[in-house]
Amino acid sequence: MNNAFERNIQAALAAVAKREKLANVFFVACGGSFAQMHAPKYVLDRESASLVAETYNSAEFVARDLPRLGSSSVVILCSSSGNTPETVAAAKFAREHGAYTIGLTTKSESDLAKAVDSVVLYVSKPAEANADGVGPALLSLAFGLLRDREGNRKHEALTRSLSALPGLVARAQAAHDADALRWAKAVRREPVIYTLASGPNYGVTYSFAICILQEMQWIHTQAIHAGEYFHGPFEIIDDTVPFILVLGTGACRKMDQRALDFTRKFTDKILTIDIEALDLAGIETDVIDYMQPLILQPLLRTYAIRLSESRGHPLTVRRYMWAMEY
Amino acid sequence: MNNAFERNIQAALAAVAKREKLANVFFVACGGSFAQMHAPKYVLDRESASLVAETYNSAEFVARDLPRLGSSSVVILCSSSGNTPETVAAAKFAREHGAYTIGLTTKSESDLAKAVDSVVLYVSKPAEANADGVGPALLSLAFGLLRDREGNRKHEALTRSLSALPGLVARAQAAHDADALRWAKAVRREPVIYTLASGPNYGVTYSFAICILQEMQWIHTQAIHAGEYFHGPFEIIDDTVPFILVLGTGACRKMDQRALDFTRKFTDKILTIDIEALDLAGIETDVIDYMQPLILQPLLRTYAIRLSESRGHPLTVRRYMWAMEY
Repeated sequence: MNNAFERNIQAALAAVAKREKLANVFFVACGGSFAQMHAPKYVLDRESASLVAETYNSAEFVARDLPRLGSSSVVILCSSSGNTPETVAAAKFAREHGAYTIGLTTKSESDLAKAVDSVVLYVSKPAEANADGVGPALLSLAFGLLRDREGNRKHEALTRSLSALPGLVARAQAAHDADALRWAKAVRREPVIYTLASGPNYGVTYSFAICILQEMQWIHTQAIHAGEYFHGPFEIIDDTVPFILVLGTGACRKMDQRALDFTRKFTDKILTIDIEALDLAGIETDVIDYMQPLILQPLLRTYAIRLSESRGHPLTVRRYMWAMEY
Repeated sequence: MNNAFERNIQAALAAVAKREKLANVFFVACGGSFAQMHAPKYVLDRESASLVAETYNSAEFVARDLPRLGSSSVVILCSSSGNTPETVAAAKFAREHGAYTIGLTTKSESDLAKAVDSVVLYVSKPAEANADGVGPALLSLAFGLLRDREGNRKHEALTRSLSALPGLVARAQAAHDADALRWAKAVRREPVIYTLASGPNYGVTYSFAICILQEMQWIHTQAIHAGEYFHGPFEIIDDTVPFILVLGTGACRKMDQRALDFTRKFTDKILTIDIEALDLAGIETDVIDYMQPLILQPLLRTYAIRLSESRGHPLTVRRYMWAMEY
């Protein structure tokens, strides 16, 4: 564990603990950072009897102007560069309304870092599961709030399990690399690739859909929720439509399994990532449901890298982003 | 106003008013019914200082098993047939946990009607803006809760404005029909059509994407959120990719306008539905932000009907839904 990283998190939690009342936790960001927010919301949804967790896109958060936002609110914001204008504006807005603001960014001198009450500096390594990354930071904050407000002890299991994460993910990536090569070759000319997931993994597939497939590969997509699949989206499938399906572990697995069982009847073009088929040694039972997105995200990056290679389209190429005013 | 419909709503509200404490309102459904839930959440988000509103897919709601669900919760569920298994299960689950349950359905003898504390029977006319439809029911419940818990008076403006809705929408549909014909002819061979919207209108475009485009027309799509657009999805656009963009009114319009301004630089394949360009006579200022999805939904149906005609693919055709076990 990076000491400055851990100190940042504990300082933010200590400051929040001084607030007499805490009613709601807003997780606010855009795009890939917004996608990260589903995991800590899932933790608070499943564990907390008193804290309401909500996720909002930064611009939508400001536009909604919730009367519930105030001194009993914590707003946790994230922007890797720290310069996403909507997220910086949301931080200022939340602070003006009396909320305690925590900003996650990789840049200590960024606008976001300057706009918030507490900064958590993380290290962005999309192809790794670094213990000082944004995912561990968000889970540590969520379990820290649960510890301080409700006496929940699972933060201890989280801390122990996070130390096993980098090795576990590196082994999973190595074990999947041959599959990633095969898959990338098979789908390299596909114009559309859908993703399917639920619960804590939904955010990861949303990120894969909008940041990898649309943004970095210009492939059409939708991050379909496995529970919504049977109420519209499933009519799109036949043997020509490729899917990436995440078979999670825990409470939501049966939604994923149902989607997989149906899809298998009509197409072989399914890449299934089964969390339970991985070697999860070192991740404690109490927190595996919550940590699976931290495994899934870098594992899917292996597939993204192989996809970009097979298409001759580097993940770094953009036509609009950072290239013009928007 | 249909009297039985109004009596159903007021009876449900009267029963909820008897509960000493009300902390959270869960809006729970699947697919097209789930899409309807974004509008009442938007109302409570914008208006309420005390009530937390959350939307969940029915299966995800049960899987999450929130400790916050209890006697100070109201769970509002919807299923047109009343027989959506996940929604019936969610109603039973919520009731067992002590929540007050309100079920919206078109069938008085359905499983959902039997599973809930209060039933609101609505009339489903997707191509019209009937005052006894699911949209008016959900807004009436939201503003009724605000009236009973917080003394909010906007339910009066809502009731007056709802009576203007059917005529207004019929006029808007007539005014748009020539555009709908032209658009449907232009996009009839497109394999992908994206939607773009934000705030209260997002649910309508989500419904159009998954229920009309995917389910009824087998066209690939994603309901892109206008605030998320610039953080990934916008890299997909060029002059070959068609969009349906909703320019809403109220707090979220500037998100939509920004998305439109950018998209226009790269493609003419944009169908823009501008709520402010419609004749909105009879809709009071206090509630226009909340009522726009009730106008948008049947207006977009005009486009769906013309699209189905131009493609020779009736909106009633399914290959999997209701045709097999799933």
